[in-house]
Amino acid sequence: MKTPTNPSSRRHFLVGAAGFAVASAAGARAGAAENLPPDVAAWTRQLGDGVGLRAYGNPSKYEKEVIRRTVPWLTATPESSVSFTPLHDLDGIITPNGLCFERHHGGVAEIEPGDYRLMLHGLVEKPIIFTLDDLKRFPRTNRIYFLECAANSGMEWRGAQLNGCQYTHGMVHCVQYTGVSLKVLLAQAGLKPNAKWILAEGGDAGAMNRSIPIEKALDDCMVAYRMNGEMLRPEQGYPARLVVPGWEGNVWVKWLRRLKVGDQPWFTREETSKYTDLLENGRARQFTFVMDAKSVITSPSPQAPLKQKGFNVISGLAWSGRGKVKRVDISLDGGRNWRSARIDCPVFDKACVRFYSEFDWNGEPLLLQSRAMDETGYVQPGKDALRKIRGVNSIYHNNGIQTWAVKRDGEVENVEVG
Amino acid sequence: MKTPTNPSSRRHFLVGAAGFAVASAAGARAGAAENLPPDVAAWTRQLGDGVGLRAYGNPSKYEKEVIRRTVPWLTATPESSVSFTPLHDLDGIITPNGLCFERHHGGVAEIEPGDYRLMLHGLVEKPIIFTLDDLKRFPRTNRIYFLECAANSGMEWRGAQLNGCQYTHGMVHCVQYTGVSLKVLLAQAGLKPNAKWILAEGGDAGAMNRSIPIEKALDDCMVAYRMNGEMLRPEQGYPARLVVPGWEGNVWVKWLRRLKVGDQPWFTREETSKYTDLLENGRARQFTFVMDAKSVITSPSPQAPLKQKGFNVISGLAWSGRGKVKRVDISLDGGRNWRSARIDCPVFDKACVRFYSEFDWNGEPLLLQSRAMDETGYVQPGKDALRKIRGVNSIYHNNGIQTWAVKRDGEVENVEVG
Repeated sequence: MKTPTNPSSRRHFLVGAAGFAVASAAGARAGAAENLPPDVAAWTRQLGDGVGLRAYGNPSKYEKEVIRRTVPWLTATPESSVSFTPLHDLDGIITPNGLCFERHHGGVAEIEPGDYRLMLHGLVEKPIIFTLDDLKRFPRTNRIYFLECAANSGMEWRGAQLNGCQYTHGMVHCVQYTGVSLKVLLAQAGLKPNAKWILAEGGDAGAMNRSIPIEKALDDCMVAYRMNGEMLRPEQGYPARLVVPGWEGNVWVKWLRRLKVGDQPWFTREETSKYTDLLENGRARQFTFVMDAKSVITSPSPQAPLKQKGFNVISGLAWSGRGKVKRVDISLDGGRNWRSARIDCPVFDKACVRFYSEFDWNGEPLLLQSRAMDETGYVQPGKDALRKIRGVNSIYHNNGIQTWAVKRDGEVENVEVG
Repeated sequence: MKTPTNPSSRRHFLVGAAGFAVASAAGARAGAAENLPPDVAAWTRQLGDGVGLRAYGNPSKYEKEVIRRTVPWLTATPESSVSFTPLHDLDGIITPNGLCFERHHGGVAEIEPGDYRLMLHGLVEKPIIFTLDDLKRFPRTNRIYFLECAANSGMEWRGAQLNGCQYTHGMVHCVQYTGVSLKVLLAQAGLKPNAKWILAEGGDAGAMNRSIPIEKALDDCMVAYRMNGEMLRPEQGYPARLVVPGWEGNVWVKWLRRLKVGDQPWFTREETSKYTDLLENGRARQFTFVMDAKSVITSPSPQAPLKQKGFNVISGLAWSGRGKVKRVDISLDGGRNWRSARIDCPVFDKACVRFYSEFDWNGEPLLLQSRAMDETGYVQPGKDALRKIRGVNSIYHNNGIQTWAVKRDGEVENVEVG
């Protein structure tokens, strides 16, 4: 039995290993708690914090390891770098805003919303500059989409590298966006007949800019200012970003500053020297916009080992930039045998789905894999199949099947199996 | 033009009213920024914060007014009190975890997850004590549900009282829950033939307990440990709570400590002296579990006035404890004329829906109302219709139509119209 470290504080009781604490009389408030039997837990014996202390709430102190993490050696500077979503510590399909991965090219722009402007110009009948209030006067729409960085799993092209799905797959998140259809804004300006592409440019120090075909701009793109109900987080483009459903994250320009309409792509830095796929023969694929169907088992995984034999739950995420995920298969033996996983969530177009597969673990080693199929019939390929076509020069668009090796002690490793 | 207050910091530029700041050479980093024209914004001229500074992210500093608020005079102590969701500052249907309203009866229990236990006993074949890890070994399910306190809008029974939808309607939120079906847990213990009710009891200092009919327990109840992907927040019952879809929030017992199966209700304090509806004749309705269809316009509203004439968006939330919201109507003239609002979100069973109605404001006064209809055909009533049947003694289950008066200057007031 442990004793309170600070009897003057009613919130510093330590709790015994058996699960029920014994509160000392010094710490307990007078009243009903004094009549409780001694096996009643400390948190039942005394009042907890009242309302008003957490005007904006945060997670429990016991969840302090559930955070975005960086890999300092991955990039030269923290301003052009990445922090990864702790997928192994999450479930369901909605990513909480505080844990959505970051990928910046010039750090987080801090934009005062009253001074925010979005310019719409180029091949339009009437150029327009919108304030944030202007954007909020247009009809709004709410959509749940995944966002995946083109470089997610990029380190894995050359074999198993990073030990944990936070690092191998943590550049994906899925939230509800509120904003205005880009089609509506473009209609406001009026497209000229030769309008074929738009340039989206950010207001950050990287002035990130990308070319997007007009067909996509007129399809399902949005200018979003909210995520999961509240205004966008600074690191997600506050106060407004482009939403380009199903396409690589790099084109979802954050801190959106202008949209220029043109008749051809601009061949910006980020679509020529970067975000292209260099093949074995020295040629590069350009404008690989769509993120193909992909999945990963988030638990068990290297950061979330198996704790016991017997009944356990395999949990994972799947997504496709081409539409809805239709099915996810699971293998326990490195791809020799497959079973269908159970999808348990609402299934949206170009959004994450959560899959589960319950199993009885006898303590033998496992080679866990998952394989997503989308509504177009596309099946997530093995890594070797991708390498056969694309080689290993690229760091982008790796949607190969991931393998986790579960060992007899329940520990899990990132390994290479086909 | 304003000048930097602190030239040594690259993040303390003030921004001119015209929307584009002029950065001083002292503050700007060397490099490309020096070649930018002078009308380029401060946040584009210099690098922002890198990754790694926000391991768990929070909203922009410009959103610091978007918080839960309390009404100190409403309750005798902060431990048994309420903080309200800022509905007027949110959109879409998902409530971010940090802004979900709080209602505690003994403060926030701070439970160490390793010491958490859930006991299942009473009229069962085999009593069981579950750890949190045990709960996570059961098949999981993900569901999006609204949660409304029975006392939401309770102050309005006697007429317009509180000026703002945060206070009149802010005891509702809507999140994605991950957990295990209560039916699965009960099957594990095995119900005896005379099992008719369950008692749910919390581990907080209030030891909140409520009786729930076994039919509901076996229908769609869950023991949830996650909200919007991450573990429950402390003030929402960390590490596990009961989810009772569509029913008053009081029965969604937080910090869930035990579930006892019995053959009749327990008639606890919270279902006898509280959470009952005292009628005019002195008799009280008991076990009014279901929250009937309800809606509220969140913007414009007293805390979110109209900023300009011309095109504006009416935005609001609707929900029903009896199933899906089927339609929402809007009136601009206090209920004389109605038009159908546009629902723009996925529509789930017993979850919030977001509705919109765009309109052109000529500056004349308005009396805004919304009216929800659910899939059972039930139509949200006026407040007077409710009073005719229930009188004004109750503080619970007020789902009457809310009226906002928009004045010529765009300011909005809570008023009483039928």
